Amino acid sequence: MNKPDYQLIIVGGGPAGLTAGLYAARGRIKTLLIEKGATGGQVLMTDWVDNYPAFADGVTGFELMDKMTAHAERFGLEKKFAAVESLDLRGDLKKIRLDSGEILTAQAVILCTGAKPRQIGVPGEAELQGKGVSYCATCDGPFYRNQEIAVVGGGNTAIQEAIHLTHFAKKVTVIHRRDSLRATAVLQEKALANEKINFIWNAQVSEILGADGVEAVRIKHNDDSASVLPVTGIFVLIGVKANNEALPLEQLQTDADGFLITDSEMACPGLPGVYAAGDIRSKKFRQIINAAGEGANAELSAEHYLGILPG
Amino acid sequence: MNKPDYQLIIVGGGPAGLTAGLYAARGRIKTLLIEKGATGGQVLMTDWVDNYPAFADGVTGFELMDKMTAHAERFGLEKKFAAVESLDLRGDLKKIRLDSGEILTAQAVILCTGAKPRQIGVPGEAELQGKGVSYCATCDGPFYRNQEIAVVGGGNTAIQEAIHLTHFAKKVTVIHRRDSLRATAVLQEKALANEKINFIWNAQVSEILGADGVEAVRIKHNDDSASVLPVTGIFVLIGVKANNEALPLEQLQTDADGFLITDSEMACPGLPGVYAAGDIRSKKFRQIINAAGEGANAELSAEHYLGILPG
Repeated sequence: MNKPDYQLIIVGGGPAGLTAGLYAARGRIKTLLIEKGATGGQVLMTDWVDNYPAFADGVTGFELMDKMTAHAERFGLEKKFAAVESLDLRGDLKKIRLDSGEILTAQAVILCTGAKPRQIGVPGEAELQGKGVSYCATCDGPFYRNQEIAVVGGGNTAIQEAIHLTHFAKKVTVIHRRDSLRATAVLQEKALANEKINFIWNAQVSEILGADGVEAVRIKHNDDSASVLPVTGIFVLIGVKANNEALPLEQLQTDADGFLITDSEMACPGLPGVYAAGDIRSKKFRQIINAAGEGANAELSAEHYLGILPG
Repeated sequence: MNKPDYQLIIVGGGPAGLTAGLYAARGRIKTLLIEKGATGGQVLMTDWVDNYPAFADGVTGFELMDKMTAHAERFGLEKKFAAVESLDLRGDLKKIRLDSGEILTAQAVILCTGAKPRQIGVPGEAELQGKGVSYCATCDGPFYRNQEIAVVGGGNTAIQEAIHLTHFAKKVTVIHRRDSLRATAVLQEKALANEKINFIWNAQVSEILGADGVEAVRIKHNDDSASVLPVTGIFVLIGVKANNEALPLEQLQTDADGFLITDSEMACPGLPGVYAAGDIRSKKFRQIINAAGEGANAELSAEHYLGILPG
């Protein structure tokens, strides 16, 4: 086998990747973490994190990820900011090709590529993206000061961000396809009590209208009636899909939605030395705290594979 | 079914139980957390936690658990300090009997009873416990100022605590049955560079000697020779065993060591509404961060079971 560039390469720098990186650096594993944007992943799109245990008063998504990054850096984690184009995960020497053409090799790989917002898939959505259609309230909320906007979704993210958006917008209308919210109780109570938040239940957005920017959304109600709601912005917060475009899906096992199947120690079946952790994994609950826990498990599994931790 | 006292009872208040409690309280589930001692579990016996992500400079075990407890309390988690004597986890109404005789009922239960230090099982160990034989360096280290002591073990806990004990003791001898340490690299480096720490490799303690207190340990070397090391204290830090004495093991599935088997969503097979999280689970890696992640998973699974979170 050719000498690998690294013992371990971690692809993706959200909570799972950063925790794996912290454990690996503390374990003095020769490790590289590759991240295409800024470390922190989707948490950077989150205004406020109230359920990362031991941050008792809550913390901004940005600050939490800043601290997690600093933590891994304190132990000397090496990072590279680059997009991964493709990977070959078979054999003893894993190959990671960056979009610059550079090829890096490692004995073990942890895939922490995460997930990204799901789209509604209606006319106008792609055309008006960045012109009033947004998937990130934290990023784009401040643009809508004193305006009327819509939020699509009823889960924790949608309701948390709807509340956040009332700091800017004059009126926030939550459009939800059911007659009740999935969000956790504390959030529901806050949203239902907020005078700036209106609800349109049992309804879906069927079209986003506007020329150079969003002007309104067309709504299809579950009773088959239709209406038009004038808004200048729409935030689509209806869950996530797998960030798996760069991954060799013919080598990996995935569920029907393209998320990676692992065993309970985060190993990818049939690919010794390959692990996955965080939102890219096939699982029921996607939380910061369980992504971090999985990152630790994946790294400890990799240390065993590398022969560093005894059985 | 009789009306249950609670929707959810969490047994045990370490990182897994506290995180489950935080999620449940934030979800406005009528929840009771039962803890027999102080909340925090084994972390309270840990001097310093350097790998709980986002506490970038490290944190004392006590402070981390204090913050985790405060976090759950901020959302109103109800706690009861009592020992559980037995549980009946079958059927729709789970019954928890306390040692006071009181019986509490709940629709769902999360078992977070954790683990406790393993003993060596040699003559003198039981007799001299609390008289020089200790399983908690944080608890008992200060008693050994300027004395010579022994540490048994070579894993992260043993080496972390051996380093900690040099703050008090004149000399710390680590006795390890192998010729290399299992502890993570950063800890190994620190211990090997510490002038107050000596190592006896390939050896086991065969007897603890002393009348009213520890006076020496008898050591059996792997080459079958024997020696006696004069010490006034011995810290046994060789891993954990399951805290399962109060659990109905005939109802639960366990591994060979008595740890609880769950599915990937933390459900105990064959017992709808019963979950386990943290060190009591059968798993390879026992870390604070993965215990917390499992606590969140278990609580979200319980919310589904209770019909609060839609499928």
